[in-house]
Amino acid sequence: MNIALLPGDGIGPEVIAQAVKVIQAVAKKFGHTIHFETAPVGAAAIDLTGDPYPESTHAVCLRADAVLFGAIGDPKYDNDPKAKVRPEQGLLAMRKKLGLFANVRPTFTFPSLVHKSPLKLDRVDGVDFVFFRELTGGIYFGEPRGRNEQGTKAFDTNVYTKEEITRLARMGFEAAQKRRKLLTCVDKANVLATSRLWRETVQELAPEYPDVKVEYEFVDAVAMRLIQWPKAYDVLITENLFGDILTDEASVISGSMGLMPSASLGTENKLFEPIHGSYPQAAGKDIANPLGTILSAAMMFDYAFDLKDEAAAISDVVNRSLSEGIVTEDIADGAKAYKTSEVGDWLAENL
Amino acid sequence: MNIALLPGDGIGPEVIAQAVKVIQAVAKKFGHTIHFETAPVGAAAIDLTGDPYPESTHAVCLRADAVLFGAIGDPKYDNDPKAKVRPEQGLLAMRKKLGLFANVRPTFTFPSLVHKSPLKLDRVDGVDFVFFRELTGGIYFGEPRGRNEQGTKAFDTNVYTKEEITRLARMGFEAAQKRRKLLTCVDKANVLATSRLWRETVQELAPEYPDVKVEYEFVDAVAMRLIQWPKAYDVLITENLFGDILTDEASVISGSMGLMPSASLGTENKLFEPIHGSYPQAAGKDIANPLGTILSAAMMFDYAFDLKDEAAAISDVVNRSLSEGIVTEDIADGAKAYKTSEVGDWLAENL
Ligand SMILES: CC(C)[C@H](C(=O)O)[C@@H](O)C(=O)O
Ligand SMILES: CC(C)[C@H](C(=O)O)[C@@H](O)C(=O)O
Repeated sequence: MNIALLPGDGIGPEVIAQAVKVIQAVAKKFGHTIHFETAPVGAAAIDLTGDPYPESTHAVCLRADAVLFGAIGDPKYDNDPKAKVRPEQGLLAMRKKLGLFANVRPTFTFPSLVHKSPLKLDRVDGVDFVFFRELTGGIYFGEPRGRNEQGTKAFDTNVYTKEEITRLARMGFEAAQKRRKLLTCVDKANVLATSRLWRETVQELAPEYPDVKVEYEFVDAVAMRLIQWPKAYDVLITENLFGDILTDEASVISGSMGLMPSASLGTENKLFEPIHGSYPQAAGKDIANPLGTILSAAMMFDYAFDLKDEAAAISDVVNRSLSEGIVTEDIADGAKAYKTSEVGDWLAENL
Repeated sequence: MNIALLPGDGIGPEVIAQAVKVIQAVAKKFGHTIHFETAPVGAAAIDLTGDPYPESTHAVCLRADAVLFGAIGDPKYDNDPKAKVRPEQGLLAMRKKLGLFANVRPTFTFPSLVHKSPLKLDRVDGVDFVFFRELTGGIYFGEPRGRNEQGTKAFDTNVYTKEEITRLARMGFEAAQKRRKLLTCVDKANVLATSRLWRETVQELAPEYPDVKVEYEFVDAVAMRLIQWPKAYDVLITENLFGDILTDEASVISGSMGLMPSASLGTENKLFEPIHGSYPQAAGKDIANPLGTILSAAMMFDYAFDLKDEAAAISDVVNRSLSEGIVTEDIADGAKAYKTSEVGDWLAENL
């Protein structure tokens, strides 16, 4: 197995390093040979090459069986609306060039962490849903986009084809069939032409999945109900921009954002990353929580290699580290906090 | 004073009727003469005229000093992506034709209701922020929008001019000056050309308001922080679509969504409405909570007529009804519930 490692910016390199320890321990335990190849992305790549997703990095991803990615983003690029190159462009280029059209974002709770949720326990305990966010279309990539000549008017284009909607929706339907059989299509069909195509396309597909109950909800209503009744959801499908907002909203309700993994899937390529950001304030301090990246590695064994036992072994040792309190300061709750590298070592040893 | 009444759909007529009682009581107490003119909008107007915002209704709004609006929306139009006329088009036409470019949405808590919040008390108690959502631009109105000939591709256009951003942003800056002097500009400047124009425009205006601290946050980050640290916000400004999603998200955190008022302001016209929807399941049952509409009437006295005492008199009697438990079943908490009409009567009598 060939794994491309894209540590990226901020705490990315530190958390990826821990995931590598755990992956190596899994390889040893289950008798796999794993090759790693590391490549720069984001601000790190701009600093090196001027390009946030250089061709050389793309080549590394293409020849890998899976990509494990840290985080992207550097404050020095954030508040400059005129900056020509931004780290995030690397992320978008990577998604587009690798064809990663489906971003899979589960939200679930850990018994030992659910008390950290900003929501009341009865609202959130046992929450278990998953978003399928379309990741290579919509207003993120639509043309035309830009300014008029005088620079006084700006525009972006949201665009979707039936084909793009269909392939994402099918993933959602199939996931729902393996779960609680409820699919929620999130759109703004009362305003947007693109959303009406989403709704229409999903309505046409629904008869092929008679065991799945389909609900249609407006994005603003979902933004409310995710907080009010998050347990009501099972699988949600939505377009790129709505998914960006709602999956981030969803990520804080479990109380364990630092632990949430994600997968970005295409026909040819598969990428795995924690949902947390590059957290620049913590970079280099050996305090970042590596569990989101390590659970993303578990998702990788499951989704990319179809190795369920290996995936389960990682999840299990993570659960043990949580119950034994071998955790970083963000979730140590006043008890002894371990360093990022210590957590990685413990997990690799105890796997 | 001439007030246009647009009850709209679902529970709209019932809650507007209670606001009228309270406005009449205020008029009597303070010696004002108020004329009401009622006109249909939404599904109600489609049923009557085929148009969700008929010219005759527009004429009524134009000759009024302020518009008091109930709610719009009927489930019979919701799940038909091919419906030619939808009630919501009436809402959008109304906003556009009346030039209501700024939607003002306060979020605050009532001591007697904050326990109903899905958030933990310490996160939400004392929350007090206000959104200024741009309401007549962006992807709601941008052209081109629609489908390709075969119907297999749909598109929408997000578009903003510097002028549109400036007039909304100035309202936000001015509000911040009268409040805690913090302005948050919410955008997606790492992806959208329109957002970069928003950020640039706000950055250019900021020096004119040296007493206001300006922060720039991405919409996905705000979707998280609204739940995690809602007390951190004071005034937020944002574009139409982000505002739609975030103000609805914000509305549930206080635990008193049924009570939240809003104003939609333009240069010539002003409209006031509760933020709740048409709630069709409750229509005609005399159980809907009229307080959101009544507090919107208070906002009307303040923003449209600059009559602060009258506005305060309404807020005061609403607070008394809450502390004395003269409330509808949604907030009665197991105690005796009053009918919509009884709450209206009590408020009018006790004002
Ligand atoms: C950094 C940004 C471009 C990106 C997005 O909007 O997709 C991020 O918010 C995410 O969700 O991965
Ligand atoms: C009904 C709909 C068109 C409307 C909007 O999206 O603006 C509503 O959600 C609102 O926020 O007033």
